[in-house]
Order: sequence, then C-alpha cells, then structure tokens
Amino acid sequence: MPETPLDHALTYLKSHRTEHLAEVQDFLRIPSVSALSQHKADVAQAASWLASRLKDAGFENARIDATPGNPVVVASSAIRPDRPTVLVYGHYDVQPVDPVSSWNHDPFEPTVENNILYARGASDDKGQVFMQLIAAEAWQKQNALPVNLKFLFEGEEEIGSVHLSQYIREHQAELAADLAVISDTPMYAEGYPAICYGLRGMASMEIAVQGPYQDLHSGVYGGAVMNPAHALAHLIDSLHDASGRVNVAGFYDEVDPLGDEEREAFRRLPFSEKQYQEGVRTPALFGEEGYTVLERIWARPTLEVNGMWSGFTGEGQKTIVPASAHAKITCRLVPHQDPRHVLDAVEAHVKSHLPPGVTLTVKRGEGAPGSITPLDHPAVKAAEKAIESVYHTEASYIRMGGSIPVVVDFQEVLHMPTLLLGFALPDENFHAPNEHFHLENFYRGAETVATLWQYLGDAHV
Amino acid sequence: MPETPLDHALTYLKSHRTEHLAEVQDFLRIPSVSALSQHKADVAQAASWLASRLKDAGFENARIDATPGNPVVVASSAIRPDRPTVLVYGHYDVQPVDPVSSWNHDPFEPTVENNILYARGASDDKGQVFMQLIAAEAWQKQNALPVNLKFLFEGEEEIGSVHLSQYIREHQAELAADLAVISDTPMYAEGYPAICYGLRGMASMEIAVQGPYQDLHSGVYGGAVMNPAHALAHLIDSLHDASGRVNVAGFYDEVDPLGDEEREAFRRLPFSEKQYQEGVRTPALFGEEGYTVLERIWARPTLEVNGMWSGFTGEGQKTIVPASAHAKITCRLVPHQDPRHVLDAVEAHVKSHLPPGVTLTVKRGEGAPGSITPLDHPAVKAAEKAIESVYHTEASYIRMGGSIPVVVDFQEVLHMPTLLLGFALPDENFHAPNEHFHLENFYRGAETVATLWQYLGDAHV
Repeated sequence: MPETPLDHALTYLKSHRTEHLAEVQDFLRIPSVSALSQHKADVAQAASWLASRLKDAGFENARIDATPGNPVVVASSAIRPDRPTVLVYGHYDVQPVDPVSSWNHDPFEPTVENNILYARGASDDKGQVFMQLIAAEAWQKQNALPVNLKFLFEGEEEIGSVHLSQYIREHQAELAADLAVISDTPMYAEGYPAICYGLRGMASMEIAVQGPYQDLHSGVYGGAVMNPAHALAHLIDSLHDASGRVNVAGFYDEVDPLGDEEREAFRRLPFSEKQYQEGVRTPALFGEEGYTVLERIWARPTLEVNGMWSGFTGEGQKTIVPASAHAKITCRLVPHQDPRHVLDAVEAHVKSHLPPGVTLTVKRGEGAPGSITPLDHPAVKAAEKAIESVYHTEASYIRMGGSIPVVVDFQEVLHMPTLLLGFALPDENFHAPNEHFHLENFYRGAETVATLWQYLGDAHV
Repeated sequence: MPETPLDHALTYLKSHRTEHLAEVQDFLRIPSVSALSQHKADVAQAASWLASRLKDAGFENARIDATPGNPVVVASSAIRPDRPTVLVYGHYDVQPVDPVSSWNHDPFEPTVENNILYARGASDDKGQVFMQLIAAEAWQKQNALPVNLKFLFEGEEEIGSVHLSQYIREHQAELAADLAVISDTPMYAEGYPAICYGLRGMASMEIAVQGPYQDLHSGVYGGAVMNPAHALAHLIDSLHDASGRVNVAGFYDEVDPLGDEEREAFRRLPFSEKQYQEGVRTPALFGEEGYTVLERIWARPTLEVNGMWSGFTGEGQKTIVPASAHAKITCRLVPHQDPRHVLDAVEAHVKSHLPPGVTLTVKRGEGAPGSITPLDHPAVKAAEKAIESVYHTEASYIRMGGSIPVVVDFQEVLHMPTLLLGFALPDENFHAPNEHFHLENFYRGAETVATLWQYLGDAHV
C-alpha cells in the first residue's frame, strides 16, 4: 500500500515526539498567569512564542492582535473554497499556582515522570494548544492540509474571556468557518476518548419579596402581617414538584426529548452512582424522575436557587418579622430553549404564585442558550472515525452540564457548531497544584486531530 | 359621709402635686443610663436616691443590694398575714439619649410644657416608679396600708435585666407575694386606661439543612442532587397553610380558645386596621383566618421565620448548588402552651417533612411560657374598679403580643400572677428623643394605684 499524506503526517508526529516534548516544555516555562498583573509581560511573551511557533509551522500570517486586555493570536492557512473551514480555539493563559508549596515540582519548570508531564498549563490549555499546533504542522509541512484552518488563541480565558466576545464581533468575516474545534476539555475517563457535542445554556433571575417597610417586632406584629420569608419559601417550593421536575408552566416547552440513540450512548459510559454520590457526599442523589444522573446533568434543564436570604442571619436570635426576602435563581438550559422564554415562564409563575400581603420584584439577569452539534453532523462522524483509528476504541459521546461562553459566541455570532475534542483526563488537576497531562494523550491527541482533518476534508463539510 | 383612709390618701396626693412634680424631676435629673459605662456612678446615685426616698415614704427597711451589675433596690412594709401581699416591680435605669440633637430640651433637665413632662425616663420607667412610690406613701403616712407591699426596683432593665433572674431566685422567700404589679407599659390609648393581663411566651429553634459537602458547580451537578435551599423552602412553606394557620400537628393542642367575653372586650377597643396597615406599610394585612388583628397578635400563637440564608448572597451571580441552608424560627406562645411541647411538635414536623437527599440538624433554643392573670382574679376586678373610680371611664382589658422576662420569673419562680398597670401613652417616645409623660396620667396613675390598694385589701386576695 502506498504511503498517503495522512501516513506522512502521522509519521512526522511520531518521529518528532522528543522535539515536540522539548518545545511544549519551553511554552509551559513561560508563567502566563492572566489573573496576576505582575505576569503581564509573561502573558505577552507566551503570545509571542505562540505566534512565532505558528509561523515556523507554516502559518506565516500569524499575528498578535492587541485588545484592551491581553492579546489574541490569530493565524490561518490558505483558504481553498472547495474545502471545509475549521476554526481552532484555545487559550495560552494559565491559572495562578497558589498554594505553590503543594506542588511537587516548580509549576513553571515542566517535569516528566512516568510519562506524565507536570506543569501549570500542561493540560489546561497550553499543552492542548501546542498539540493542535503540531497536528496542523504535520500537514502544513507537506503543504497538504485537507481542510482550511484558522486559529484563535486568547490570553484571558482564565479571567472570564473579558475581551474575546467583542473581538469575535469585530472579526466576524475573518473568523468565519464551518465548524469550531476546541481542545480544552477532558475525555470522559481514562481510556474513553470522547466527543462532547452539547452544552447547557443559562438564564438568571433575582427575586425580592417585600413586606413591611422595616423589620418588625415579632411580638408586637407577629401574626398580623405576611412574613416575606414565608412568602419566598412558598414561591421557591412551588418551583419544583416532589419528583424533582420543574413545576413552571411552559418551562419544558422547547426541550427536545432525548433520543433513544443518545440515551443508549450515555448508558454505555461507565458511571457509578455510588462513586458520584461519595464525591459530593450527600445522603442520596436526587433529580428529575425518569432520567439517569448523566441525562439529568447533561441533557435536562434545571432551575436552582443559588442563594437566598432574609432577616437576621447573625449569631443568637432577633425576634423579628423580616422586611424582605431575596433569592438568586439560575436555570441551566438545554439546546433550543430560548433563555427569554424560560425567564418569561419563571417570572409569570412567581407572579401568579405570590401569597397575599407582600409585593414582588423580579430582576431578570443574563441569558445564554445551550449549544449542540447534531450527531449526524459530518464533523461528528469524522471525529468518531479519527478517535477509533488512533485509540483503537469506540469514541464516547458526551455532553456537559455547564456553559462555555465562547461556544455561545461561535453559535450566535459566527453561526457555526462547535466540537469539543479534549484529550486531558478529568483528574489532571486543572486549576490545582500538580496539574499534569498524560504524554500518551498529548501524542495520540495530536495524531487524532491530524487524522480528523483528513476525514473532515474527505467528508466535504 | 365621714372621710375614709382612702379619702385621706387621695387628698394627700392631690395636695402634694407641686412637691411630687419637683421630686420626680430631681429623680429624672440623674442620668442613670445603664448601657453606657460612663454613667455607672449615675446609675448608683439613682439607686441611692430611690432607697432614700423610700425611707422618707415610711419604708425604713429600704436597702440597696449589690449584684454583679447594677444594684437592686428593695423595701417592704410591715407584713400582716391577714392582708394580701403585692410585689411592685419597676426599673430606675434609662435608655441612652442619642441622637441628643433631636431633643427639644436637655433630656436630663426635666421640663414641663402643656402639662407634659419631658425627660429621659419620664414614662419609661422612673416617672412610673415614682408614681408607685407616692401612691404607697399616701397610705404609709397614715400607717394604714390595706395591703402588704414589697418593692423590687432594678437598674438593668434597659440592658436585658441581666442579673435580675438570679437575684429573684436567691431571694424567693423575701420576694414572695400573692401578686405582682408593674407600671412599665402604656395604656391602650389616650382616654383608655387599661389592665394588661396576658403576655405571649416564646420558643426558638434553628434548623440547618445540609446537602453536598461544599457548594457545587450548578452546571456540573445541577439536577443530580437535592438543593438544600429548595429543601429548606419546602420545610418553611409546610409550616403554615394558605389561610395563615400553623400547619404543625399538635401546635394548637394546649391553646385555650378565646372566650366570648374576652373577644367582646377586644372588640370594644378602638382599632383601625387601615391605620395599623399604614403604620407597617404592607400591601395588605394577613393572618390566621377567623381572628381579628388584636386577637392574632395578643391571643393566638404564631410561628415566624426570623431569618434564613443559603448559598451566595453577594452582588452578581454565582452558579452554585449551595452546600447548606439555614433558618431561625421563633414561636410566640399563648398562656398554657408548654414551650417544650411546641418545640417537640415543630421538630417532629420538620423531621417528617424533610425532602430526600439532604440531612437536617435542629438546634433547640430558649423557651419561656406566656403568662395570664385570670380575668376573674380579685386583683383584676379591683384594678377595674380603681380605674373607673379615678378616670370615670370603663377600664380596657388588653393583652400584649410580646414577652416580659421578669413576668416569666414571677410566674415560674415566685408562682404568682402579674398585673400590668401602666399609665404611659403608646406614643410617649420611650427609647426615642423627647420622651415624655402626661402629668394628668402621672397624678391619676398614683391615685388609681392608691385606690387599687384599698380595693385589693377589701377583696382579701
């Protein structure tokens, strides 16, 4: 069988492991901590290193764009209209290292032990950014990229991507693509390389129940006025039924039912309820009837009180009827739920369930939709094939219960789906001391991504 | 008709108004502020003044007893076993005067304007203490007291009577009496001299609902665990039904039904729901169905959440499932409810209503029973007659929704009922700038008390 360009790419990656390891260590040596102003110059240096390395990889147009905060690094291959275009996103900034005394090695002196690379940023996300870079280089060296590639690397992810949304809005045409790929998440578990194709959205609200104009003496007034804490408890309790379902009319209107194929894919994943429960240390798990834990946290919408307060909360006792009571509420949404519709439904519910004798104020907060990449999207199939070809195991299909704001921007501003293809492991200590990255997944991840570009090019997305 | 001893007593009071006014002003001039350590010597001076004046009134055994705090002043008449014995309680300490710039006169330079005496302590309680003193003196001067009198005046009422309970326990025999009389409360309203014969008791509890061991990310875990804020809201909401009744099994077991006579007496009192509601500025009054506002606050038990808290309560949002949720609860009890039984009932209720997936901790707090003087008690009838004879109007029968700890001690330790016979008006600015006392009620109050001793002696309690 003759050698294909993909064979060449994979051979290139396999034969340069030593050099690539040395290079990623150079990258990790730069303490690009975005949260600390004393590392401002280091963050800039990491951006320079990355732009320069992209040029070496054959992306000569790599450049550093200033923002009001830390710079964005962008680059792209030559764009051939007959090929699908992929935007690769990642971040070159890292978390602080405190408590530094808990590290077994200097967090900025990358160290390999038992084929594991220890350093701040090893898995989150500089290691995975470099992995993407060499996967692209493996093709670019042969001038044979099967897809058009664009790179968007930011330096503020660990401080909330404060300027990225604006940057994306201002560079819509330049960043336009058919698909985004992000390697900034873990696989499902060791030995379970995964495709994450769905994230939940969010809608938030704060409600305030007002009773008397000030706290009242509970002896003098108790029994004659509605207690706002009681009224708020009534509202909160009315939001769920006893089986854990959100009891708000219209809340589930836009929720796609879970398909059999998807449920079956979730069921195939190893999952121990016992272990999960021990992890959160609750007396029992609890959630919407008729759904497994993974279905509940990945694919069902929720409504949670994140905080509530009323009256006297100090030590001892104060015999009052509180003047007011407050709650912060957020809903996690599944794809296709419109955050405004959900907030409308919750607002209508609390207004219609308010007990007598108090008034209600509703302050609607931010909303962001969930996101999903259809399972029959060619990129999903291509990623599945790539994983299976490199890892010799079935790809896992997973979703995540949280939100990633940049994915919302890709969906809402750039109108493209996102594939989350991460090669970290869930217990690799992101944001904690002794962050690490299994080198096997660093190397195989690069090979998987290089393979994905071949299959994606073949699929002509 | 020949002059009776009562006539003599009343004539004495009427003919010494000028002197008594001058004397009460002397008493009020002493800044006996118990809350401020710089007034420690003034508090002691007020005790001395009072003991000395009691001696002048014919109670030669008056003495000052040290406590770990401010002293107690005690005195008694000769005890004749064939006469009823009455313990008169009051306090000679006063509230601070801040903000002093809001006073129209120096708070410690008692000033009379329009027959109203302005000074800190005028009505709460030095004016009423002196009123009691001269009422007794009016009899003692003739050596004709129709009852045995004991006096107990403390100097720490405004700081929570910190050492009084212990003092009473240590002087049970000396303080033993058939009845306590306190003049430290207001009449119902101007023109409505009142007998207060009932106070509510109290029982307190703090509950904590524990879920996961720490706050959890609501994206990663939301939907799979019971949210402790939801569980607490469920518990709180379950404590009342929609009609305002406490929904706890056994809660009303020991509650005496309100008698027709009592309800009729309440109904005769002038009361404007509109004015009351405007005073607390709620959109509507609310309370247990089937009862008027006065019945609800005076004669029905209540359960109020005084404070609750859970999760994130700062500015902005934090998308968590809180680890725990907390509430402080107090019940106001009516006479004959045992605080322990009530706490038992509430504890059993919250334990049996706890949703799954969380644990509950109940911390039982202080309890004190309510108190009531039966309406057919001879002292009540005697007070009614005394009021009607001096004020030429019907006596009002009232209760109070709050608690007075010393009354609980009189009931529990000294085993006697208490009659609250106050002559202040509800709007005389106790604890506020420009505290005052209508001299008409100062003089008439003394005459009413002097008359009460006659009727009480006649009734042979």
